[in-house]
Amino acid sequence: MNKTIREEIFLNAKKWIYEAGENIRKQIYKTYQINTKSDANDLVTDVDKSTEQFFAGKIRNQYPKHQILGEEGYGDNVKSLDGTIWIIDPIDGTMNFVHQKKNFAISIGVFQDGVGEIGLIYDVMADILYTAIKGEGAFRNQEKLPELQKGVTLERSIIALNSIITCENKRINEKRIHQLIKDCRSTRSYGSAALEFAYVAEGSLDAYITLNLAPWDFAAGLILVNEVGGMTNQLDGQPVQLLHKNPIITSNQNIHQRIIDDYIEWK
Amino acid sequence: MNKTIREEIFLNAKKWIYEAGENIRKQIYKTYQINTKSDANDLVTDVDKSTEQFFAGKIRNQYPKHQILGEEGYGDNVKSLDGTIWIIDPIDGTMNFVHQKKNFAISIGVFQDGVGEIGLIYDVMADILYTAIKGEGAFRNQEKLPELQKGVTLERSIIALNSIITCENKRINEKRIHQLIKDCRSTRSYGSAALEFAYVAEGSLDAYITLNLAPWDFAAGLILVNEVGGMTNQLDGQPVQLLHKNPIITSNQNIHQRIIDDYIEWK
Repeated sequence: MNKTIREEIFLNAKKWIYEAGENIRKQIYKTYQINTKSDANDLVTDVDKSTEQFFAGKIRNQYPKHQILGEEGYGDNVKSLDGTIWIIDPIDGTMNFVHQKKNFAISIGVFQDGVGEIGLIYDVMADILYTAIKGEGAFRNQEKLPELQKGVTLERSIIALNSIITCENKRINEKRIHQLIKDCRSTRSYGSAALEFAYVAEGSLDAYITLNLAPWDFAAGLILVNEVGGMTNQLDGQPVQLLHKNPIITSNQNIHQRIIDDYIEWK
Repeated sequence: MNKTIREEIFLNAKKWIYEAGENIRKQIYKTYQINTKSDANDLVTDVDKSTEQFFAGKIRNQYPKHQILGEEGYGDNVKSLDGTIWIIDPIDGTMNFVHQKKNFAISIGVFQDGVGEIGLIYDVMADILYTAIKGEGAFRNQEKLPELQKGVTLERSIIALNSIITCENKRINEKRIHQLIKDCRSTRSYGSAALEFAYVAEGSLDAYITLNLAPWDFAAGLILVNEVGGMTNQLDGQPVQLLHKNPIITSNQNIHQRIIDDYIEWK
């Protein structure tokens, strides 16, 4: 993708994501009085669908040759990574939306022939937009994020993981995860994969591991993390697959391989 | 404590907590360029001490008969709950301060003869102040927090716990915690007990459980949670002890006893 096109797509994506965020905030405030979780369940379904529809409409109008891969079904049946693909999660962190009415994000990744070009993660209620353009770095609002620190050790790392990964399961040895929890400095869990990627990119977390992410959960995030010198892979160290679900690790380079080698044991 | 005195103490505490928060933000921004965790370690030590000293100075000047219980040692050697006691954590969420430079709080609880009268939890970087006055409700900035929802079930609850509680330990059966994680809707972990109490009070979380909290970690939070109809106890169901460390559950009433009965098994 050439630089001019990339810049143009980025500016459009940024304009649309702010517009979508503004609409979501309006819908939340309008229904704020209702405040029961069953109503919030209906609201999140509406907002999820209408937001993806909004992006699909804008993209098809402006870029009719681009493909769209989204969670809610308004995109295309994407079979190959050829060409330009928008990978969209209209609301990442659905449960946070329902229970907290905050701590969720819109996530947009734009890929050219399988290469990440543009990533945007918008924390809608906090009004914080994380962006990345390939080769030009990552930003939190207007502020450029520094390269991730060298010399980070596992013992001084904060790692995001959902505690469900500590329970007996069919995929990995949970006892190794318990050891990871004991060996690292501490763990956190925020309930939005897109935001957890953004926190790794800004250095608030040193790693995030999870057993099952869809492409729209990590598409933008991996571009962000890449731009600050971090790494994203499947939990077995293989490259991520953009058209399938993946077990994922995204982290500071210094601890990436050690987590994979020492703490992930497949059954 | 009579209403007039309580109101006066509340207004002073609020003024001081905003002033302390402003000072902390200035110190963080001033040193933001340094950005390494070892420097942040020094910074948090300085800020912890100077902030507690600031409160101790203000309180001793204005209320010479009140006692102060604080983490950093600028308070008194409090042996009984008689009289008026300020329980202060100048920075709750020290590790977040060091690694994230956000998601930490100042926590102040004021007790009269062991009864919680005033609670304040200030999320310094987000500039969100949670307050509670006995009998007058809890607030998030100026907005009154509604009573916690009735009819919440464990299966639809979001519970905060640090994943260290899922590892083999000497105090509780971790397998019951794994079952809790499987039975509830999801878990979160934010790394600041004071903020986790505040999130329970605002309904973003339905419960928060932890094995070891000092009085300054929960003093303000329990007053907040109490004012919206939630409950705080030791994890065995006993009342919390204000002068000792406690294993703690704070939660929506609907799930409080069930968590204690069904998921906490002491060794």
